[in-house]
Formats: sequence, structure tokens, C-alpha cells
Amino acid sequence: MSFSEFDLIEKYSLPLTGGQPGAFDLKDDAALITSQEGFIVTTDMLIEGVHFLSDANPSLIAKKALRANLSDLAAMGSKPVAYTLAVAIPKKHMKDESWIKAFSDSLAEENASFGVYTLGGDTTSTDGLLTISITAFGVPVNGHILKRSEAYVGDSIFVSGSIGDAFLGLQNMNGSIDVSDNDRKFIESRYWMPTPRTELGQELAAFATSAIDISDGLLAEMNHVCKASSVGAVIQYHALPLSSSAKNILKKYPGLYKAFFSAGDDFELLFTVKAEDVSRCAELSQAYNIQLTKIGEVNSGVDLIVYDDDTRQVEFGEMGYDHFK
Amino acid sequence: MSFSEFDLIEKYSLPLTGGQPGAFDLKDDAALITSQEGFIVTTDMLIEGVHFLSDANPSLIAKKALRANLSDLAAMGSKPVAYTLAVAIPKKHMKDESWIKAFSDSLAEENASFGVYTLGGDTTSTDGLLTISITAFGVPVNGHILKRSEAYVGDSIFVSGSIGDAFLGLQNMNGSIDVSDNDRKFIESRYWMPTPRTELGQELAAFATSAIDISDGLLAEMNHVCKASSVGAVIQYHALPLSSSAKNILKKYPGLYKAFFSAGDDFELLFTVKAEDVSRCAELSQAYNIQLTKIGEVNSGVDLIVYDDDTRQVEFGEMGYDHFK
Repeated sequence: MSFSEFDLIEKYSLPLTGGQPGAFDLKDDAALITSQEGFIVTTDMLIEGVHFLSDANPSLIAKKALRANLSDLAAMGSKPVAYTLAVAIPKKHMKDESWIKAFSDSLAEENASFGVYTLGGDTTSTDGLLTISITAFGVPVNGHILKRSEAYVGDSIFVSGSIGDAFLGLQNMNGSIDVSDNDRKFIESRYWMPTPRTELGQELAAFATSAIDISDGLLAEMNHVCKASSVGAVIQYHALPLSSSAKNILKKYPGLYKAFFSAGDDFELLFTVKAEDVSRCAELSQAYNIQLTKIGEVNSGVDLIVYDDDTRQVEFGEMGYDHFK
Repeated sequence: MSFSEFDLIEKYSLPLTGGQPGAFDLKDDAALITSQEGFIVTTDMLIEGVHFLSDANPSLIAKKALRANLSDLAAMGSKPVAYTLAVAIPKKHMKDESWIKAFSDSLAEENASFGVYTLGGDTTSTDGLLTISITAFGVPVNGHILKRSEAYVGDSIFVSGSIGDAFLGLQNMNGSIDVSDNDRKFIESRYWMPTPRTELGQELAAFATSAIDISDGLLAEMNHVCKASSVGAVIQYHALPLSSSAKNILKKYPGLYKAFFSAGDDFELLFTVKAEDVSRCAELSQAYNIQLTKIGEVNSGVDLIVYDDDTRQVEFGEMGYDHFK
């Protein structure tokens, strides 16, 4: 079975608009979106083999692609509203209606979970790799926008949730580690279904001095913040918050801990707050049931330095993951 | 030579923002865009080998990708403002700074020509095909939005410019036809550098009943309008406006004319106007120096029919180009 673009849109994409009038039932060349406060706009392209494993479950691929974009909106402190979706689908999947159905049904679930809708899209079949490009729209809340560029000397550096789980999930799927069933389920779910910190981001917009989401690795992201804010930073090597599963796995593979600093895909928020606002983090942590952990401090230097317990510097060859290396 | 994403953004992407404050110097996870009237949003993904020839000049690829999106905004009658750009660049090009420079310089030229800026983006190197996904933003002018769904019985069907040139350009690059140097230059330029009918679209928004741009073939596009508007239409087989080059080439290859109805890439506007507004098309044609040609009429039927001179029906096996066939 094969599809025309038109049939495909009618059957699977149209319900994703949630009947929003600006989507014009996907019958037009473009869509309309309005907001008094304007829009926070982000775009992320995900390619099989680079951003997710090839031949993976289409339902998981859809979730990961959308959540990566929603995480960017969270890092700006904005409330997600809608997104456009451009997909190049390998011909083998286009012959398989179950693949397309699973991909679309998964997006429908995500739309309901995150209160967003599909504004429009473009679908092409390709001889190349599955490639998903999403442009997501959020609105700033109360006029606040979280940026990378306003970290101050003396600020505390925090991360949300736990670090390293998605990396362990990938290691397990690659067959590099052997873990218990319970731990496997957890770390694979962290790899495929990261939690965009949407509410947290909106709360942080009111007082955090900078924020970024950890898509490419904690050190790489902190380095972006330092450069954008013209500051240095110190991170405590043993301070990373770990899940129970990560703790279990590190007992068997202690050498993996160092990689948590440069591993991507956790999509947690990395943010800085002034000393007087540190207590607000504890309140938020309780209100939203999200672990918020201080891992370091901003200083007036020009480097990002990681110290172990006795203030000896830990050397890292690479500052996190870089798609071009 | 190889690039990190960060270096690449600094060197080539940053100037494309034109210093617009909402782009945050490309230092953040997302950008801010505001407009009282909201935004018309379109997204198009272009893949080498499907939407443009492989291993083509990066400068031309950039122009074609952006113009295809600006053409969608024109078809909605909106004024283009900005766009996000996600690109998967094959590794061989990433090693070649001249490729990236040519691609970026070309976008800078286009930004200046069309009065738009790059709001943000995402760049990844890939083992797969060059893939460009653009999401473009326009603003509706005076609250008017041109749609596909409001063509009325009795409306005249018009096209802008000339039809078939881009198809001939592709035939020539494929080596299927042999043409004069002058004609070659013209038809190749029409393939690589279609003219988004930006001003025309904004004028038409005030009175046309429907509009669409011809990316996938005249009959396919007219069929979309008919379905969206629940009307039928008749198109006169010999009515297509032809360029001098197309006329020259058809003398040698008369059999190619029929393909003009299903060939894409012209990016002209196909639109419908009420009988009493036909004279306004003549005025617009003169004011903007764009040929506007009546090629048919909307009727109360359910089919799109092409008649030759003696009102005999011309049969078409396929209603224009479809990426999935």
C-alpha cells in the first residue's frame, strides 16, 4: 500500500490540528497563529542514526522529536502552544501504514499530554534517512523570557531531575552494558521519553538568571551559558544528581560516571539563580516534585572548571557532545 | 577543515539575523517574534534528488529552498518577515568551508532582496542526503488572508507569469532536451530561482477568492482548490501563458506542452477572481509588470476538466506531480 500526500494528510495529520481554526484544516499553503505576547520559536531537526537509533519504534521517535523541541521552549520559560512538522519518511515506511499510524497516534497522545497542536506540515518520501524537523511555538509567560546570557558572578548553578540516565539507556540499547530489567525500562524510557520541564521553566522565568536545556551534554551546555554571559564557572564533580537506576548501574560500571558530564539527551534544565533565590528552588522542587540540585557556582573567571572533592581539577578531553566531531 | 556547530553559527549564521533583537544573536534555545496581526506560518522540507538536483551549486540550492517557502507566504497574501532554517549537511560538504560559505552568502543575498531575516536554526552533519527544512513567517496585510477554500462558481481562473519554464530547465539539466544558450540560461534560472509573487499575493488578498502557488503542478494545485472549495473547474488547454524561451523550445519539442500541466517548480500563483474583479487583474498586471492570464473558469461540477479548442476533453493520466507515486 502506498499513499498520496493528500490522503496521508486527511487520514492522519488532520486530527492532530485539534480543530484549531488557524490550521485551516491543513487545506492551505500556510497556517495562522496569533498571540498578543508574540512567540518563542525553536527549531530542531532529528535524523536517524544521529539523534535516535535507526529502525526504532515510530511511536518513540515521534515522542522524542517533539519533546526535544518542547524542552527548548521550557528552557526559555515559555508555555508551548503549537508546532509545525516536516518529515522525510524512508520509502520502506511509506509502504507500511502501521508505521505511519503509530507515528501519528503517538503525536496525538503527546498533543493531549502537553496541550499543543499541529499547526501544519510537510511530508516527503525519501531514499535517505528518516528526518524530522519540528518548529515549535511557545508564548512567554508574564513577559518573562529565560536566556542564556544573564548568569551573574556568584550565582548558584542548578540542574533539574537526574543526569546520565539517557546516556545509560543508549549504552544499554547499544549492548555496551548489561542491566536489570527494572533499570533497563527506566533508562530506555529516559532516552526515548525525556520530560520537557515545561512548568518548571515557566516558574524559573520569574527569577532564574539563565537557563538552557541539556540536549548535548552538561559541560557543553554550561559552556554555552558561560560564553553567552561572559562568566566562568566551577562545577563539583560529585554533585550530579543520580537516579536509583543510575546508582545501581554505576556500582557495576563506575567508570561511566565521567561520561555523564558530556552525554546528551537528558533534556533536564541547567539554570543559574542568585544567592537570595536559592530557597525558591527548594519551594519549586517541592511544589512540582522535581529534584533540583545545586552543582556549582558562577565566578568571574573565563573557564568552566570541574573540581573533585578535594578541589583538584578533573580534566575533560571534550566539552560534551558535538555533532561535527 | 571541520566545524563545530558553535563556530559555524558564529561565523556564517549570525550575520543572517540582521541584528534583529528577537534572534538573541542565536545564543539561545529559541527566538522571539512578535506581530499584532499574528503570523502566517509555512514549512517546507527540500531534499536533494527529490526537490533539487544532487551536487548542485549550494548558492542555488539556498535560493530555491527559501523561495519555495516565500512562495507559500505569497499564496496566502502575506508579507514575509523571517524564517527558521534546519539543515542536515552531508559530511563531505562540512569538510568544505567554501560550500558552507556559498550557501550562507546566498541566504544573505536573499534576505536583503526579500526583506527577511533568519530567526534561528539547527545544523547537523549527516551521512544521508542534504535536507533543508525552512519554516517561514509572514504577516497578513490589512487582515486579509488568501485561502484555497473560497473559490466560487463563475469565478475566472488566472495564473501569474509563465508556465512550464522550470520543467524545461530540469529537462535540460537532465540532458533530455537540447536548447540554445539563451534559452538554457532562462529556463535554468526559472528552475533554481523562482520568483515568489510576494507583492502580487498581498494585492490579491484584497479581492481574489482563492489562491495557491504552483509547486507540484498546475492541475494538482487546481485540484486542491476545487476540493477545498467544493467546486469543479474547466481549464482551456491552449491557454497557458508561455515564455519566449518555452515557445522556442516547443517548436522543436511540441510534445512537451502537455507535461506543463503536471510539472511543478514554477511557483507562480494560481488564483480565482469574481467576474466583476477581472479588470483589477489587468490593472495589477500593469502596475507590477507581471503577466496575469485567464486560463479557465470555476463551475458547479465536481471535476477538473481540461478542454482543447473545440471543447473536446484532454485526458491526463496523473493530476500533477505527487511525491509518493
